[in-house]
Amino acid sequence: MPDRTKFVLDEKDMPTSWYNIIPDLPGELAPPLHPATDEPLGPEALAPLFAMELIKQEMSPERFIEIPEEVQAVYKTYRPSPLNRALQLERDLGLPPGVKIFYKYEGVSPAGSHKPNTAIPQAFYNKQEGIKRIATETGAGQWGSAMSIACALYDMECAVYMVGISYDQKPYRRILMESYGAEVISSPSTRTNAGKHVLEMDPNSLGSLGIAISEAVEDAATRDDTHYCLGSVLNHVCLHQTIIGEEAILQMEMADAEPDVVVACVGGGSNFAGISFPYYKRRADGKSSARLLAVEPKACPTLTAGEYRYDLGDEAGLTPKMMMYTLGHDFVPAGIHAGGLRYHGDSPLVSLLAKEGAIEAVAVHQNACFDAAVQFARAEGILPAPESSHAIRAAIDEALAAREAGEDRTILFGLSGHGHFDLAAYEAYNTGKLEDYDFAAGSMCEGA
Amino acid sequence: MPDRTKFVLDEKDMPTSWYNIIPDLPGELAPPLHPATDEPLGPEALAPLFAMELIKQEMSPERFIEIPEEVQAVYKTYRPSPLNRALQLERDLGLPPGVKIFYKYEGVSPAGSHKPNTAIPQAFYNKQEGIKRIATETGAGQWGSAMSIACALYDMECAVYMVGISYDQKPYRRILMESYGAEVISSPSTRTNAGKHVLEMDPNSLGSLGIAISEAVEDAATRDDTHYCLGSVLNHVCLHQTIIGEEAILQMEMADAEPDVVVACVGGGSNFAGISFPYYKRRADGKSSARLLAVEPKACPTLTAGEYRYDLGDEAGLTPKMMMYTLGHDFVPAGIHAGGLRYHGDSPLVSLLAKEGAIEAVAVHQNACFDAAVQFARAEGILPAPESSHAIRAAIDEALAAREAGEDRTILFGLSGHGHFDLAAYEAYNTGKLEDYDFAAGSMCEGA
Repeated sequence: MPDRTKFVLDEKDMPTSWYNIIPDLPGELAPPLHPATDEPLGPEALAPLFAMELIKQEMSPERFIEIPEEVQAVYKTYRPSPLNRALQLERDLGLPPGVKIFYKYEGVSPAGSHKPNTAIPQAFYNKQEGIKRIATETGAGQWGSAMSIACALYDMECAVYMVGISYDQKPYRRILMESYGAEVISSPSTRTNAGKHVLEMDPNSLGSLGIAISEAVEDAATRDDTHYCLGSVLNHVCLHQTIIGEEAILQMEMADAEPDVVVACVGGGSNFAGISFPYYKRRADGKSSARLLAVEPKACPTLTAGEYRYDLGDEAGLTPKMMMYTLGHDFVPAGIHAGGLRYHGDSPLVSLLAKEGAIEAVAVHQNACFDAAVQFARAEGILPAPESSHAIRAAIDEALAAREAGEDRTILFGLSGHGHFDLAAYEAYNTGKLEDYDFAAGSMCEGA
Repeated sequence: MPDRTKFVLDEKDMPTSWYNIIPDLPGELAPPLHPATDEPLGPEALAPLFAMELIKQEMSPERFIEIPEEVQAVYKTYRPSPLNRALQLERDLGLPPGVKIFYKYEGVSPAGSHKPNTAIPQAFYNKQEGIKRIATETGAGQWGSAMSIACALYDMECAVYMVGISYDQKPYRRILMESYGAEVISSPSTRTNAGKHVLEMDPNSLGSLGIAISEAVEDAATRDDTHYCLGSVLNHVCLHQTIIGEEAILQMEMADAEPDVVVACVGGGSNFAGISFPYYKRRADGKSSARLLAVEPKACPTLTAGEYRYDLGDEAGLTPKMMMYTLGHDFVPAGIHAGGLRYHGDSPLVSLLAKEGAIEAVAVHQNACFDAAVQFARAEGILPAPESSHAIRAAIDEALAAREAGEDRTILFGLSGHGHFDLAAYEAYNTGKLEDYDFAAGSMCEGA
């Protein structure tokens, strides 16, 4: 029998707390500012939109926050998620025995990605506070799917404002959401003043994530029974995702292995936070010296080419200003297939860690990511989401660099989702039609 | 904390043998016959198409067959699969405490279904015997996906003859197979004499599973480096699927529960065999008295309305005649969305068990299955494949019947796959456009 390759966590050993990085941060976390007045925003400003418990978590000084039993129970729909050693990939890469690759796989969730890890507690806390309906936005549909599922599981209503062009061109995610009982609205819509305003200016508007956010926020702000939920960027979202890394620590112990580097893709930042923050904690506790590596697309390289400053969270200027790495809130990234990585900014928590040198970041080309994705699929069996392929690319590059340097290296990467909804992207890659945009060069390119 | 809902098997406790039902059968298993001569087929007749080890398994008298270590290792890509208690579904159905529903979920595999359980060992045994390339057929693409993945994992070539109409209308499964490196050929093709013959008669042929089988068999028969693989019906396919039930037995023991009824959908029969045969063994060993319930569509009710007799495995008459329940090899089932259940016959093993009264069968309506599928998705979070929804329908009906009768009942059903590739079917259901065909009534209908 070859080495062990799968590390299965028993239900009874599942983590019961999320790790809150705020008390361990290496610097001061700058508060969000009102978009119009630039005044720091207090909890009361967020109360019309968010559950109080989530607002508390947004600024909590507690290092650990208990996962409510009702959330633990629903997590078991798909958690604990598997952690595997990529033994066949290691062989295909010709790695020496001292260079090992492990991956934590979140594609087993019913949405096919890590997003339900926060959608579930967000729905729960809102329900607990008497809210009956959630309004949110979605681009290609990953976050909307997760929120739809979470609302179904807690028997709540869900309204998803979906970017119009995706609503028309990507019906499958819409159907998925509707099958879970969500109402999916093509944005811009006539349901909100924000939507009507856009349609007056341009009746043929294709929509954008910024417009959809505006509509969802307005929907939630104007109805007593409704709150708003967001799928990334915010502190409480990063908090909920730490279930990934907390599980991974236990599974890596089962594997008798300690990562030298933890790798994950970064868009808004919650997936990266999910697997890496618990290792940051482990470092703070003197139990790890793992490097934490965030991987972003060359077409939208916020951490590697952005500025660290206050910027708006959305194009329209409805959301608070946050201190973060940003390419500018009016930056429109090229249409790369990793839709979840096309955000102009980054989570303030991830941004602060990058600013303080506590994490590293690297930008990679889309074509190089698909090379890695297909190599991984044929070795390990799982076809990854385009977002996740960024982590695979960087993990392979880490392994090859260790081999070149003659060093031992244990690499753990986050495989945030499967690619079953992204087959059009694979078709483009398989037929040699995949292009890429290089932000630094300011032009389209063939990829690395 | 509510009752435990998830039962996680450790890697080290995974079953290391498949259960072979042949020595425990309640009657004589009739041999396959040559389609032209009606002579019983010996192993030598199968040798040009199948690996010798698979031919041996087809008629093995051994009760347990060890899973090769190399197969166990690759199974760990996605196995052990989860077994969950459907606690929220139980609540939604208003079941008393004595009526419990458990499900074993195979949708975590990289193909999204149970099919890799046999694709992996089939690829392995062929590779072990020096075969470099597999030819097979696929309808909508489930089996072709599984075989493509298995071939990628063992570094073999794979040629998939895909029914032409699906090749054109369902590109996503094709792209998935191609991403794993398979060559996907629209059938009928000019690659084989069988295909050419069909195209001469009808240049616009949409193809059929029978034609695709003929092409794949001819491809394998005419190339020394190539064998043929089949995804259901045959004894060795049912054998490999027993990993499902062998795991389930261990997980139900963890749950301190023993099923009174084991439910699974049946098309060719391998999914049903996979979860139910190990419980048949457990019955033979005096450890269980579980009823075994096969669920089929009203549109293609082989076990409940077919005849038990020798019939051809395919429309074209190229495959052996098998003793089985059949609606006739020229029966063309209505275009229900559960494509995996549209087979005119049934596995000879499953058929014999039905004939001898060792298992039960029930036929259900497509619309009633989608009702159950959506109810399940909103309670348990997982959107099932249309095939799997048949098992859910019957499991719910079993639960409601137990409640009515005031009886305790523990129900275990097989959830064979997720519905992420079947969203067009959900769209039809969600918009009230789903029709059904009733074989007994001989007409289209609205469903139950």
